[in-house]
Amino acid sequence: MSVIRFANAPAILAAGSVVGKKEVEGPLGAFFDSPVSGDDRFGKPTWEQAEGEMQRRALTTALEKSGLRDKDLGAIFAGDLINQCTSSAYGLIDFDIPYFGLYGACSTGAEGLILGSIALASGGFSHVAGITSSHNSSAERQFRYPIEYGGQRSPTSQWTVTGAAAFVLGTERGEAYITEALPGRVIDHGISDLNNMGAAMAPAAIDTLTRYLKETSHRPSDFDMILTGDLGYEGHGIVVDLMGQAGFDLTKNYSDCGLLIYDRERQDAHAGGSGCACSATVLAGYLLNLFRKGVIHDILWMGTGALMSPLSVNQGLSIPGICHLLRITKENMQ
Amino acid sequence: MSVIRFANAPAILAAGSVVGKKEVEGPLGAFFDSPVSGDDRFGKPTWEQAEGEMQRRALTTALEKSGLRDKDLGAIFAGDLINQCTSSAYGLIDFDIPYFGLYGACSTGAEGLILGSIALASGGFSHVAGITSSHNSSAERQFRYPIEYGGQRSPTSQWTVTGAAAFVLGTERGEAYITEALPGRVIDHGISDLNNMGAAMAPAAIDTLTRYLKETSHRPSDFDMILTGDLGYEGHGIVVDLMGQAGFDLTKNYSDCGLLIYDRERQDAHAGGSGCACSATVLAGYLLNLFRKGVIHDILWMGTGALMSPLSVNQGLSIPGICHLLRITKENMQ
Repeated sequence: MSVIRFANAPAILAAGSVVGKKEVEGPLGAFFDSPVSGDDRFGKPTWEQAEGEMQRRALTTALEKSGLRDKDLGAIFAGDLINQCTSSAYGLIDFDIPYFGLYGACSTGAEGLILGSIALASGGFSHVAGITSSHNSSAERQFRYPIEYGGQRSPTSQWTVTGAAAFVLGTERGEAYITEALPGRVIDHGISDLNNMGAAMAPAAIDTLTRYLKETSHRPSDFDMILTGDLGYEGHGIVVDLMGQAGFDLTKNYSDCGLLIYDRERQDAHAGGSGCACSATVLAGYLLNLFRKGVIHDILWMGTGALMSPLSVNQGLSIPGICHLLRITKENMQ
Repeated sequence: MSVIRFANAPAILAAGSVVGKKEVEGPLGAFFDSPVSGDDRFGKPTWEQAEGEMQRRALTTALEKSGLRDKDLGAIFAGDLINQCTSSAYGLIDFDIPYFGLYGACSTGAEGLILGSIALASGGFSHVAGITSSHNSSAERQFRYPIEYGGQRSPTSQWTVTGAAAFVLGTERGEAYITEALPGRVIDHGISDLNNMGAAMAPAAIDTLTRYLKETSHRPSDFDMILTGDLGYEGHGIVVDLMGQAGFDLTKNYSDCGLLIYDRERQDAHAGGSGCACSATVLAGYLLNLFRKGVIHDILWMGTGALMSPLSVNQGLSIPGICHLLRITKENMQ
């Protein structure tokens, strides 16, 4: 239950990001790899297969950038939001690589990077990849209503990001390094509103960040940025308030990937972006670019996830959250 | 893509197994930890919560046997078949332990033991746990029909095991050792019959076992037992036939956990047991007992999984399979 410090920090050698039309039109659109897709179907007959296709393209792009072939990867760590994680299983079937399926809801990208880093640290693997995705149309009909129903969205609801991100990890020199990691615990503070996931996940983010800061004796101001994955406006505000009451000032350098990826007013994104792809594409596209330019050198990037299903909520249970933290640095600090 | 050989083989320190009424009444009933539960609800109002409760009891039992407390575990690796893996997330929420959610369908138990072993090998953890579960009633209504519908079962259909198993791993002396592991690739040979999962998963088992035997130059007869997770009669027969044609004689010492857990005639189990709990409870209850008695010393235990969802099959896709192999030995062979 303590912070993992990697003696030989795993490097992000390359990343690939594929996103949909709304994401390309957003403030970070220029940072993603994908060309604009006309209709978010990516040439596939169903939304679920489109999501798998995004994963395939993201990993293909990351491999191309890294100069590696799929045979060079010892393992894939992949997962998504769709029932039985089919976007990952079907989307990555062309790659001839040992496959570890994950489910961490929207924290899956962070979970994959932590497990990939642990795999490299074990000495049994030279290169691995972490991949995740979400698709607005496949997620909406699974977790809420069919899109054709035209259900009205509440102000606290978030917009599931259409996208996929893949990261190739190794122990040589890379674009940035996974220096420390703190895996999250399952935390449930009784929120049961499927249209307010930010509030449901905020307690997990507070739990993990507090544990990290206390154990390492770091202050929030020690980092260039602190980012949660997809708490949106609601969850971000809760984290700022409650961490502030506990003596941690997050008003200066804390943001949320769900606040960065859309223009809230212009794009009608309500409380901000969400989904596995939210934090993962922001890291793969935007944040790695800031590392490359030397704008940031040392950040905390936290994947947040809500571990309910529509069935568990319909059966009257509240929504458990989880938050996995990674400290990512421009230089290998070892 | 090669066999992982653990320099300091992780030990299974203790295991807990909780099963339902049908499993207690089967040939292996005496080997499981749980007392007979009257109605497979384990005191919970829904089947899904009953499944979570089995996970909670299995981990509690394993911890008690190991003499460890939950605070001693550095991580849990857990997953199940239910949408968004809620049996694990809700069932284990009482444990104050970092949580890695997995989805490998019925191979999840094997996936958790491999990832747990990798985590121990990385040096960042002293003890971890792997947990998985399935519940016949929650799986039937999710993957096939509501039980109340009374749908007729085809001869090739299998019976999802109601149960959960938890394993506590560490690097001290234990009941058995995870000496080698070979993670599986996603393999799809075009089977699309939801009532013949054995045939859908058999190609993945053949792929992994063939790779293992070729790389290590072992013959099947080198092992006391070779066990797949839940191929049942159909899949078991396919594996014996096709491996035999490839020059590997599996007629002597190869069985399947789905063939061991039920009495096919007396218990009306059709093609045998299946589900995450099938291979996991057979290892936790029956096989560890055989290790303890010195009946077996060196086995290959392979978790098999089918990575489809009802939606992917309804959309016309075939069923991809996966198979993770572990070599488990009575002595630490390093």
